[in-house]
Amino acid sequence: MKNIHVRSTIQSYDIVIGNHIRHHIKDQLDKNYSSILIITDSNVGKLYAQDIHDGLNQKNIFIEIVDAGEQSKNIETFYNLHTKAIEYGLDRQSLIIALGGGVIGDLAGFVAATYMRGIDFIQVPTTLLAHDSSVGGKVAINHDKGKNLIGSFYPPVLVLYDTDTLQTLPPKEIRSGYAELIKEAMLSDSGLWNKLLSQHLDRITPADLEQFLEMGIKIKAEIVQQDERESGVRKFLNLGHTLGHAIEADLGYGVLTHGEAVAIGLLFAFYVSEQELQAVLPIQELRDWLKRNEYPFLVNTDRIDELIDLMKRDKKTEHNQIQMVLLNKIGDPVTHIVEENKLKNYLTSFVEREIING
Amino acid sequence: MKNIHVRSTIQSYDIVIGNHIRHHIKDQLDKNYSSILIITDSNVGKLYAQDIHDGLNQKNIFIEIVDAGEQSKNIETFYNLHTKAIEYGLDRQSLIIALGGGVIGDLAGFVAATYMRGIDFIQVPTTLLAHDSSVGGKVAINHDKGKNLIGSFYPPVLVLYDTDTLQTLPPKEIRSGYAELIKEAMLSDSGLWNKLLSQHLDRITPADLEQFLEMGIKIKAEIVQQDERESGVRKFLNLGHTLGHAIEADLGYGVLTHGEAVAIGLLFAFYVSEQELQAVLPIQELRDWLKRNEYPFLVNTDRIDELIDLMKRDKKTEHNQIQMVLLNKIGDPVTHIVEENKLKNYLTSFVEREIING
Repeated sequence: MKNIHVRSTIQSYDIVIGNHIRHHIKDQLDKNYSSILIITDSNVGKLYAQDIHDGLNQKNIFIEIVDAGEQSKNIETFYNLHTKAIEYGLDRQSLIIALGGGVIGDLAGFVAATYMRGIDFIQVPTTLLAHDSSVGGKVAINHDKGKNLIGSFYPPVLVLYDTDTLQTLPPKEIRSGYAELIKEAMLSDSGLWNKLLSQHLDRITPADLEQFLEMGIKIKAEIVQQDERESGVRKFLNLGHTLGHAIEADLGYGVLTHGEAVAIGLLFAFYVSEQELQAVLPIQELRDWLKRNEYPFLVNTDRIDELIDLMKRDKKTEHNQIQMVLLNKIGDPVTHIVEENKLKNYLTSFVEREIING
Repeated sequence: MKNIHVRSTIQSYDIVIGNHIRHHIKDQLDKNYSSILIITDSNVGKLYAQDIHDGLNQKNIFIEIVDAGEQSKNIETFYNLHTKAIEYGLDRQSLIIALGGGVIGDLAGFVAATYMRGIDFIQVPTTLLAHDSSVGGKVAINHDKGKNLIGSFYPPVLVLYDTDTLQTLPPKEIRSGYAELIKEAMLSDSGLWNKLLSQHLDRITPADLEQFLEMGIKIKAEIVQQDERESGVRKFLNLGHTLGHAIEADLGYGVLTHGEAVAIGLLFAFYVSEQELQAVLPIQELRDWLKRNEYPFLVNTDRIDELIDLMKRDKKTEHNQIQMVLLNKIGDPVTHIVEENKLKNYLTSFVEREIING
């Protein structure tokens, strides 16, 4: 069992990583809760909700199951969960447990952040991708006009990461989470980049995955505790996300996984870094690795204008100027304003090149 | 012009009180905002929105007007304001101004708290009641099942209180705000209690009102900066609100003003304090003053069960036990668990007595 401590001005917390620890969640609680609401989805609920319930070993535990998928991060589901929390009698001494992937963490976390102006919540991530979203206290739901536009900074009291739950993930989910690990590796000179790209996803061992997970979480935790509210270095974590989010929104959430869209965004960040910063980067290495591991490239030139419009609505945009995170080299990120016309040209030539190469 | 500073772990801020200061809001800003959204209601907008707009003296100012009244603090209006903020292109360097009473402050503040995980907002209260809600960083919307159940702790960057806007308030609104001043007076030994109850609302002077306002705000500010997230002394500010909120919800929001409902709650808090704590309190003085100043007493014995149910859903309720704020004497509040059957008896005899006396 590994324990990573994250300092926060709002609420510091531990990330506990271990095998089968979901059965012993009670051991990790240092408070007596009047009632507990487990929020999970239709896929994860049937696998693990009962384990968590039994592991809590107390009265007044309730389970709410929402539809699996990004479309549950909407305002109606958010409101309905509040209704349930009221009906179950949750009070300020109650706890919400987010059991699932990033969608559940964001949604249940935002319910906890806003229920009676905020009650405790615990993240129990069950996907590889959720190693990213469960750390750092960002919670949100989507607006019809953009992803994560309605939300808060609201850290959990605990993140409990049972690596056993990763064993049953489909390849698409492994690809998704692994792309965020690659992003973390690109932000750090820890050597994680070489480790990650020397692997093939079909043949990765649980022990390797656990090691990468721990390294990725440490990189992320280090950044977020320097800058909780994303006024500075935390913006670097958006590497690959300006285009990634735009692709997700343009295709409709759920067509690509989040990480698959981010992977395209990472490649594009390399490309723009070469153009704008004259950086020399392992773009070919990343391109080959993504292809070998069957990451889809679902962008075409017909959608450039829509993608640019979506990128302008990115949360990093300030005074109407699009900011991207670029790299001087692996481990050396910068935020950089890219003029709209230039960005359009970059995106057009990037997409044309990838389609020809694809 | 008076300046009261409120310390906050999230964001410290000033409360500036003065006559006609709405015309000079630009002088109070220490930041350059990319765009500004003024959120106001159908009553206040036509009176003051243009003054604020002109006083800001910059580009990219937008005005959104919602229906006046408590019913606007709902999830649909909240979501629609997010839609407008996105359409107007608000970014993380934008500002929201809440121009109006408590409803607007709570609603616009919660939009600001959750838009892209939080942007700056300024409270410009235009009612006497809003002296209370604009200080302390509580923002929220209502759930169908209870008031302020969905919200955050999210302080403004500035409260700008133009006392000129109080001159046109109808008597019902003066009654409403004055009840919260009485509550603050009950929590403090500052002598405010005697000052307030020696006045008749029909004959109060602007100078007196401004003095009381400043004293009330100081009492409130003192309490909230001791306990931002309401785990301790801040609960005292709920004096009169356990029953007050229940009455508002039971009658339907808007039948009584918030302060009129709280006034009944304050009288009841005196009554329960006499019963539970054997406190000797000026209940007769308050009753006479409320009657003289035409506070309505809209409670009857048919609704006791519903009121008790609503009181059980109060945010102070923990482990299913109803907590009330009671007084040992003026300036000496305590939180106190009142057993449900006893509370029902108290409420019944209180209502019967008031109806007979009324």
